[in-house]
Amino acid sequence: MTNNHDLRVGVGFDAHRFIDADDPRAAEPMHLACLLWPGPGIQGDSDGDVVVHALIDALLSAADLGDIGSYFGVGADSQGAGRTGRSMLQEIVAYLDDHGAYAINASVCIVGNRPKFSARRREAQQALSSIMGCSVTVTATTTDGMGFTGKGEGIAAIANCLVELR
Amino acid sequence: MTNNHDLRVGVGFDAHRFIDADDPRAAEPMHLACLLWPGPGIQGDSDGDVVVHALIDALLSAADLGDIGSYFGVGADSQGAGRTGRSMLQEIVAYLDDHGAYAINASVCIVGNRPKFSARRREAQQALSSIMGCSVTVTATTTDGMGFTGKGEGIAAIANCLVELR
Amino acid sequence: MTNNHDLRVGVGFDAHRFIDADDPRAAEPMHLACLLWPGPGIQGDSDGDVVVHALIDALLSAADLGDIGSYFGVGADSQGAGRTGRSMLQEIVAYLDDHGAYAINASVCIVGNRPKFSARRREAQQALSSIMGCSVTVTATTTDGMGFTGKGEGIAAIANCLVELR
Ligand SMILES: [Zn+2]
Ligand SMILES: [Zn+2]
Ligand SMILES: [Zn+2]
Repeated sequence: MTNNHDLRVGVGFDAHRFIDADDPRAAEPMHLACLLWPGPGIQGDSDGDVVVHALIDALLSAADLGDIGSYFGVGADSQGAGRTGRSMLQEIVAYLDDHGAYAINASVCIVGNRPKFSARRREAQQALSSIMGCSVTVTATTTDGMGFTGKGEGIAAIANCLVELR
Repeated sequence: MTNNHDLRVGVGFDAHRFIDADDPRAAEPMHLACLLWPGPGIQGDSDGDVVVHALIDALLSAADLGDIGSYFGVGADSQGAGRTGRSMLQEIVAYLDDHGAYAINASVCIVGNRPKFSARRREAQQALSSIMGCSVTVTATTTDGMGFTGKGEGIAAIANCLVELR
Repeated sequence: MTNNHDLRVGVGFDAHRFIDADDPRAAEPMHLACLLWPGPGIQGDSDGDVVVHALIDALLSAADLGDIGSYFGVGADSQGAGRTGRSMLQEIVAYLDDHGAYAINASVCIVGNRPKFSARRREAQQALSSIMGCSVTVTATTTDGMGFTGKGEGIAAIANCLVELR
């Protein structure tokens, strides 16, 4: 027996720059939605996974547990530095669990010119859903060449989640 | 008797360019929120209705049924090519119904300089709510001249929905 | 005893320009999330509080009660002109209450280079939650120097809310 008043919605947003093609790190793969994709990758102190970062902010916000910066710290000395999105998301799910908060589902929208997400959407959703223990779905769209995502400067993600408090 | 665990939230985003004023197609009306508005209209393989496209992505994401690209295909050969938003949205509502997913409500935010949405908000909401069989509400805002929407290059929409699985 | 079908989700978005550093008004504080911050502040007919404005659009949209423009009017003659976000949000909460709509929670994401939000997140959340009578959480992120928020032209906010109709 559950109650509407135990439900919470959360929203999160994140955006990061692509690594320049002439940067030595451009040969490394891109991390997105807990999968590896052809580089150049995404800049960031951690692996730059905007899907995971937006998702973490949505989850922490829904559960009233701060945000990704308050949890992991910010910058090269943060606990997020050098971490994969998978590892960060696993830790956040456990943190919510410790506080009686459980995700019912999450939905994320990627905004960017690349990677070609659709061919691996199922794989990404399975990876995220497995970590989260609930349905996580991901859509992807472009901005017709407009704005920073359209010009290929970087990539963004908007995440929504539904959380139950017990 | 319903259960929190049957609920899903979904988010969708879409953005398209306005047709240039000196383009021959600029004389045609703009399609937005299943209504016709004074042109120049919005570019796109279908009618470029960003409200409907964001809404479809939100619905498919909430119901774990893919996204607008996986359903209709992408580009001039897609099943969405030449289609109206109304027709696409009707088909998606039926597709969700076939999979036991029913929208409880949807909320969409338009970001752009034009059209002047407020005068016809009720009409747009009635058109969308009638197709969806639930409350669909639409707000509209600008970005004070900033970014691609503020410069009048194009228009964007963010959609949220609440879906019940039966 | 509550029912899924009484629930509504809402989304709202807002963006405003920062006041130029050489503008006489630049000495005045910035209004954001119902708190005062070091200036230069945010342009707008009201106090330019993008968190409150996005939140109001999300609430009105979820409750099917229009949007911030239809409620307060638009421009220098509007009822919002010269109003604080606190006062506007209080009025909207009462308006929803009059129509049998009650927020269960709200989640807002600020996108911008400043202010340094994290140090005062709790204080902002307490101010907003106290006005709303429910949990309101706020996260903040940047866009790595990209787009109008990254260039420091202005600030944006995306709000989500969960509302119950009685
Ligand atoms: Zn990030
Ligand atoms: Zn589209
Ligand atoms: Zn505003």
